[in-house]
Formats: sequence, C-alpha cells, structure tokens
Amino acid sequence: MRIGIAGLGQIGGSLALALRPAHEVRGYDIAREARDAASAAGLGVVDELDALLPADAVIVATPMSAVLPTLAALAPRARSAVLLDVASVRGPVDAFAREHAGDARLVGMHPMAGRSVPGFAGADPALLVGRPFLLVPTVTSDAAAMALAGEIARAVGGVVTVCSAAEHDRIVALVSGLPLALALALSVAASEGVEDVATFAGPGYRDMTRLAQTAPDLAESLLLANSGNVVAAIARLRTLLDGLERAVAERDALAVRDIVARASAARSGLG
Amino acid sequence: MRIGIAGLGQIGGSLALALRPAHEVRGYDIAREARDAASAAGLGVVDELDALLPADAVIVATPMSAVLPTLAALAPRARSAVLLDVASVRGPVDAFAREHAGDARLVGMHPMAGRSVPGFAGADPALLVGRPFLLVPTVTSDAAAMALAGEIARAVGGVVTVCSAAEHDRIVALVSGLPLALALALSVAASEGVEDVATFAGPGYRDMTRLAQTAPDLAESLLLANSGNVVAAIARLRTLLDGLERAVAERDALAVRDIVARASAARSGLG
Repeated sequence: MRIGIAGLGQIGGSLALALRPAHEVRGYDIAREARDAASAAGLGVVDELDALLPADAVIVATPMSAVLPTLAALAPRARSAVLLDVASVRGPVDAFAREHAGDARLVGMHPMAGRSVPGFAGADPALLVGRPFLLVPTVTSDAAAMALAGEIARAVGGVVTVCSAAEHDRIVALVSGLPLALALALSVAASEGVEDVATFAGPGYRDMTRLAQTAPDLAESLLLANSGNVVAAIARLRTLLDGLERAVAERDALAVRDIVARASAARSGLG
Repeated sequence: MRIGIAGLGQIGGSLALALRPAHEVRGYDIAREARDAASAAGLGVVDELDALLPADAVIVATPMSAVLPTLAALAPRARSAVLLDVASVRGPVDAFAREHAGDARLVGMHPMAGRSVPGFAGADPALLVGRPFLLVPTVTSDAAAMALAGEIARAVGGVVTVCSAAEHDRIVALVSGLPLALALALSVAASEGVEDVATFAGPGYRDMTRLAQTAPDLAESLLLANSGNVVAAIARLRTLLDGLERAVAERDALAVRDIVARASAARSGLG
C-alpha cells in the first residue's frame, strides 16, 4: 500500500517505522526538525501535506488540535485514499465527518499506546505491538475503508476492536482520561504534602504519577475534548473513593477487604 | 555481621539474598514452603524463630499483623542484637517500643520497594537497589543501633533517610496509602463502567491499576493501620480532584493547563 502519515510525533513516527518494511510510506510534519529526524531515520519525507496524496491511505497523527484542520485540508483531494486519524477523542471527528467530509472516507484508528518521550525521538515500532487499536467508523466509512484500517492496525501489531464514537469516548474517559486526572491530582497533592517526594517515593508512586508527564496538549485534549464523559468518570470514581474512605475511617476491615478483592479481580489478567 | 531475618517473603527474601554475599545470614519463616524455597536458593534457614538469636541484628520482615508478636517474642532474648523491622506503618511499633521492648533496641527500616509477585518467589536483591530506606528510631534506639541499621540499608543498595514515626506515617499515607486507594477505586470504577477493560486498556491504565494487585494483607495494613493519615491524604486528593473536575466541566483550559503544569513539574526528576 501507499501510506501517507501526517504528523511524525511519537505515534505517527512509530506507525511510519512499523509500516515501512512492507509498505510505501511517506511522512510529513509541520515542524522541520521532525521531518529531518524522520529523514535521518531513513523514512521517506515530503515537504507539504498535499504531497502525501495520492495514496491508498493517509493517517493523520497530529496533536488533537490539528486533526480537524488536517482532515479538512486532505478531504477535498483524497479521492480513493482512506483518511485515518489517531485522535484519542472521537466526538469532534465524528461531527466533522457528518458535515464536512464530502466524498472522503474517514475512519478513526486510535492506538492505546504511548510513553513519556514526546516527538519523533519517542517513536518506536515496538510501542504499538499488542496494543488495543480502537477502530471507529464515521458516517463516511464503507466496508472497504474499515477493512483497510484493520489491515494497517494489524500490520503494526495492533489488536483491533471496533466501537462507535460515543462508546469510544465513554470508555476512553474511564481508561485514559480518568487515570490521567488521578495522576495529576496525586502528583500535586503529594508534592504539596511532602517537601521532597523523591526522597520517599517507591515504584508504586512512580507508576501512579507517570501520566502526570503526558504532553500538555494531549493532556488538555483528553480532558477538555471529552469533558462530559470525563466528568462522569470522575463522579464514578468519587463514589468508590468515598466508600473506601468511609471504610478506612471506620476501620471496617471487611469493607476494605471487599474493595481490595474486587479491585484485584478486576485487574487480574491485565499484565 | 550475623543477621537473622524473620519472614522470607518478597522483602525478607530480597534482604537475605542481598546481604548473603558479605554477611552471615540466617532466615526463618513460619511457612515450611518459604523455608524450603529459601533453602533451595542456598540461604541458611532455621526451623524456629528463636534460632535466629544470638545475632548482631534480626530483621522482622513478616506481614504487618505478625510484626508486633514477632518483636515481642524476640525482645526478651535479644541481648545485644538490634531488632529491625520493615513495617510500612510505624505508629504501632513506636507504641510497642515505648511499652514492651524492655532492654531490646528497636529501629524501623522501611524500604520503599516492592512488586506484584508475592512470597519468596518475588524476592530479588535488585528490588532494593536505589530505593529509599526510611529509618525510623524508637525510644529504644541508640546511636549504635541507628548506625547498624544504616549500614544494613546501604549494604543492600538502599538510599537512607531518617524520620520520626509520625512523619513517616504522614508521608507514607501520601506516597503509598493514597496511591493504593486510588488504584483500588480506579480498578473497580473502570471495571464497573467497561465490560472488558483488557480490550481497551493501554499502558497508562495498566500503570495506574498495578497497585490493585498489592497483597491483600499488605493493602489492608497500609490503609487501616494508618487510617487517620490515609483519610487526611484522601481529603487532600479530593480537593485537587474537585478543582480539576470543575475546570473540565467548565472547559476552563487555563485552569487545566495550570494543574497539568504543576503536576508535571512535581513529577519531573522522579524517573
């Protein structure tokens, strides 16, 4: 396949590196440094977004704030190219597809992957292996476009699940937005209460605050572009935390044991 | 030094393996299987707690619920042996030392280390390297006992910090109890809201729920034996989370950006 990739950050760069061995891949990034880094890594790079077309597929892997403008620029010229995008909140793309996609076929392809090193420097094809790839059809998606998205996701080692935009955003608020919110709140709360956290923190605290180093634009998008679902997820969490706090305050060992058992069972098998 | 270790679980086993190359180490565990596993790993093992004495130091590394009974059994026969214990909540040992230690010298030595594999099977000397070791004096600790505790902590690669029992428990509630409480609440909340979490979870969710698999007795101790501090830590967290939720609900990008920046700054340099 001829595959264009717009945005050569951690995810776009990882996709490019993973697809390159078996496909004709061209990448583009608005930042000269990212293009140079990708080029130095041996990727085919073009100097303009338009030059990613014609192609069988173009994957938009820009920050959230640039996804809709990039899709808007590509859609009129897409012709047979399927336009994929990795946006981690689907509502805005879903609405865009209804109103502005024209004849272009849009499919969401959101990999549940990432690490703390931003930009092309954080790109690594291994990042995507074994990760859930959430395929989200829009009103413009046909069977061929969905099949192509699945083929690309599997080609990079992803494990494909299909869901609606509404279901995606509800679930991602629970498994991605809420964990981020908790990591942010924990990181600030602990640092307010402990003068030098590093002196006292073990691996558990490190794990529980790693998401506090999510790239700021991604963190904002995960919370604000999905605000209704994130607020609902926080409400759900608060109910559990209030119950646990009550059990701890009353030294109710049975109640604590119950939530520990439920949490452990829910977590088991997740690796 | 002659060092006895009572409790050959993940922490006691790791200490034994790490100390063995340079010291005369004997281990004891109430469970036959743990003794056999330690023996098979080449550790010197005794069949009774009493046989750990005489020694220069005995480290009590049992589950929290057995720490005071074990110290009570050792104290009358300790003579010159310093009694260390790795309990992750210090209040109870502090009170015990005031009232029941007799002539024995007790020092807390709490390593901020651990992983999800329980028992001697999870023992690994590398587990302790570079981890904070919180040394907590009791009324019975003299300078020589503190120096010996520091020597042992450094011998296994620990980074030593000294603090009072009250300060220890306040801080550990923030960097250990609170993260545990959040992991438990998140694991249950997400599993209630998502039918098959594993289908959707990425590495962030995995990191944020790993502590849900803390051994049940340790989880209970961390929360219940330190309940006042844990409740205060949850209250502190709730203030932050409420503020973040308000910012998300009102789509207040500036406020979200502010907490992301504060959280990231607090987390930086923690690895």
